[in-house]
Amino acid sequence: MQNIQSYISENKNRFLDELFQLLRIPSISADPAYKENMAQMAEAIKNQCTQIGMDTVEICPTAGFPVVFAQKIIDPKLPTILVYGHYDVQPATPLDLWITPPFEPTLRDEKIYARGSCDDKGQVFMHLKALEYMISSHSLPCNVKVLIEGEEEVGSDNLPIFVKNNTKKLSADIILISDTAIIANDIPSIDCGLRGLSYVEVEVTGPSRDLHSGVYGGAVANPINILCDMISKLHDKNRKITIPHFYDEVELVSISERKLLSEAPFDIENYKNDLSIQDVMGETGYSTTERASIRPTLDVNGIWGGYIGQGAKTVLPSQAFAKISMRLVPNQDSGTITKLFQSYFENLAPAGVSVKVKPHHGGEAYVLPIDSIGYLAAEKAMEITFGKKPVPTRGGGSIPIVALFEKELKIKSILLGFGLDTDAIHSPNEHYGIFNLLKGIETIPYFYKNFVEMSNNK
Amino acid sequence: MQNIQSYISENKNRFLDELFQLLRIPSISADPAYKENMAQMAEAIKNQCTQIGMDTVEICPTAGFPVVFAQKIIDPKLPTILVYGHYDVQPATPLDLWITPPFEPTLRDEKIYARGSCDDKGQVFMHLKALEYMISSHSLPCNVKVLIEGEEEVGSDNLPIFVKNNTKKLSADIILISDTAIIANDIPSIDCGLRGLSYVEVEVTGPSRDLHSGVYGGAVANPINILCDMISKLHDKNRKITIPHFYDEVELVSISERKLLSEAPFDIENYKNDLSIQDVMGETGYSTTERASIRPTLDVNGIWGGYIGQGAKTVLPSQAFAKISMRLVPNQDSGTITKLFQSYFENLAPAGVSVKVKPHHGGEAYVLPIDSIGYLAAEKAMEITFGKKPVPTRGGGSIPIVALFEKELKIKSILLGFGLDTDAIHSPNEHYGIFNLLKGIETIPYFYKNFVEMSNNK
Repeated sequence: MQNIQSYISENKNRFLDELFQLLRIPSISADPAYKENMAQMAEAIKNQCTQIGMDTVEICPTAGFPVVFAQKIIDPKLPTILVYGHYDVQPATPLDLWITPPFEPTLRDEKIYARGSCDDKGQVFMHLKALEYMISSHSLPCNVKVLIEGEEEVGSDNLPIFVKNNTKKLSADIILISDTAIIANDIPSIDCGLRGLSYVEVEVTGPSRDLHSGVYGGAVANPINILCDMISKLHDKNRKITIPHFYDEVELVSISERKLLSEAPFDIENYKNDLSIQDVMGETGYSTTERASIRPTLDVNGIWGGYIGQGAKTVLPSQAFAKISMRLVPNQDSGTITKLFQSYFENLAPAGVSVKVKPHHGGEAYVLPIDSIGYLAAEKAMEITFGKKPVPTRGGGSIPIVALFEKELKIKSILLGFGLDTDAIHSPNEHYGIFNLLKGIETIPYFYKNFVEMSNNK
Repeated sequence: MQNIQSYISENKNRFLDELFQLLRIPSISADPAYKENMAQMAEAIKNQCTQIGMDTVEICPTAGFPVVFAQKIIDPKLPTILVYGHYDVQPATPLDLWITPPFEPTLRDEKIYARGSCDDKGQVFMHLKALEYMISSHSLPCNVKVLIEGEEEVGSDNLPIFVKNNTKKLSADIILISDTAIIANDIPSIDCGLRGLSYVEVEVTGPSRDLHSGVYGGAVANPINILCDMISKLHDKNRKITIPHFYDEVELVSISERKLLSEAPFDIENYKNDLSIQDVMGETGYSTTERASIRPTLDVNGIWGGYIGQGAKTVLPSQAFAKISMRLVPNQDSGTITKLFQSYFENLAPAGVSVKVKPHHGGEAYVLPIDSIGYLAAEKAMEITFGKKPVPTRGGGSIPIVALFEKELKIKSILLGFGLDTDAIHSPNEHYGIFNLLKGIETIPYFYKNFVEMSNNK
């Protein structure tokens, strides 16, 4: 295994060239304008799989964007690792805030700047190159399957059906996912918990047409003012969510576990400086780390209504809209939460308006026991390559598919991510450190080796 | 004067042709993209003035869009009427709600559909054609000046300086403005009060970059949620505005005057049906008519922030924005109100965000005594052409320049409008009835005649 380091240094430039080719494809799943680029991207992933020596390589259609599947079965008796990732990316707006264009990958300060560089093309690419190394050096110690989907950023709507219809094809002993972050380049960590998600879009309609605010202002309900009132009522003064029964099923994290989590390095001043904020804000009674991991939250992700062009227009608009998402914790069911939100929100509306709540997508929270073989194999791999034992953390983000895999395939997932929270994923100037990219490629083969050895000793 | 009716019926088709030419020019003052159309529009108004026989016709530059000035002085000893109007229009968005394009004027059900058909090109055109009749038939009984500006829809920012620098040029005995509405085609009315305006744009900034709502959600202030909280706090549960000292100077309308105003025909069921709303909403203790006329109000005219494209994006945005306007009543000073808003709104912000309030424009409220010669001359003119005495009303809209004329030129304005509240001004499918257009052309010469006669008898 000592050869992995020399393999990386010999091939580094080619790796970057190949990754840049993937990053140049604007595979934005949320926007129908990029449909052809999505097909192009699936094809590019398929070609990568073929090129590195996978045996079966397929583009599998779904009702939405296709999934790319590949496998290499060296011996049915050996354990099987299923690698999951996604080839779609978030929209790149607002474009004017990017220093270099989102789909023209650029190197600056040893970082790759491009939409998808970290989330998730760069991290998927680590797996492909780690496999390339193991296959070409005949050191692949087990069977491997690769499943790269194209709808993660829009809620993986069509993956559940694909998974249900292909349980045999996807059978494995462990799922390996790199779509999360470590604490710092000198503080490796492994996400052993993820929040769930309920995402809705709301529409408030007042008068049936846009009105002159001078003629009607003050006399009829203004849907923007009303929407603001309604959104404001979703939190109380302690920033607790006011939806009845919202907290009923929330996993109660014990004092001792909260103490353990609080030991992960965290500097509130650095955090505030990084974001240029004077103060943090959140649910009373919880630390910043806890608010962003073990507690459920509600955020407006977008809002619009009325005149938003240059200058002034004295309109009282007919409609106002918002996209609202809730992050959920273990035991909260996203379907139930969506329904609770829906009925509460609709009831907040006064008589002068009507309200529609459209569910977008959801997903369940997930917890990985830190005494499982998967966790231990990942821990040991990181300890070798980083020279330091990783810290277990709870991530605030959601990878809904992880809970689905557990339910449908009965397989646990390991979140072996190599990004950083400062990588600006979902934001302008997303980037991924070359250190992180190469450290990922280096670490993955150790995971394979450790996992096979620990499985044998079970 | 009996000839005005035959003049109108002989020239009706030409009138429509000429007006349609004016309506085809997209003279949107709020959007810099239409700058050339604004110049084209000023030229078209100038040509109309020349064509109808005005003596001096000029395009006068300002720091913004120019004003068109024209005059015909038949005898310096006679009274002078100054006609004011505007050639700019509101933006036409949302375009997809127009049945026929906003700048392709179309006749349907005896109405002219186009942006500006009522507000204010159609109503300016009535004056030009009434003057054409009086000049060509040698029946103009006094001097006339015409002042048509191009920035009314964006706050008339540059007109005050023009007025101050040209007090002699603009000297007159009365100002005649058609930019308001009558109650119904069989219920003529004259606006004897207008609300003032304070228009601001607010910007709430949280973290210095867009964040992933999963990683940061719940731990840092989300500027959209905060903006909603802040907007929500601008009204109390009785829909009174909460800004301290906001109501201090509000004109107290006497019970007897409120009683008189309440006698103007108003059907709440028709009102609700017209707007397709289940109920009205406004300040406790006041009727719908009062809320929209004698009481000050606050409306959000536009709001935006975060991801507003198709699909879902789990972003916690760096910024959120809103355009907010307040309608003011007599004695409220728009500059003072803007400052009160600014300091209150800035204080509503929690520590996790910073707030900027940018004043857009403002204007003062206005009241016209119903025993003035101007009012009486207009009342008598309408009584002749509608066969019914008009009702005095208080309009909810703002024409800030009216208060400015009074202050700088010491001249009262008569708001002799012929639109209808249902004309959808500022909305998609703005229209103006041919009845209203022609009734305006018919009524105006009677106003001139009455005003001159009543001035002589003073």
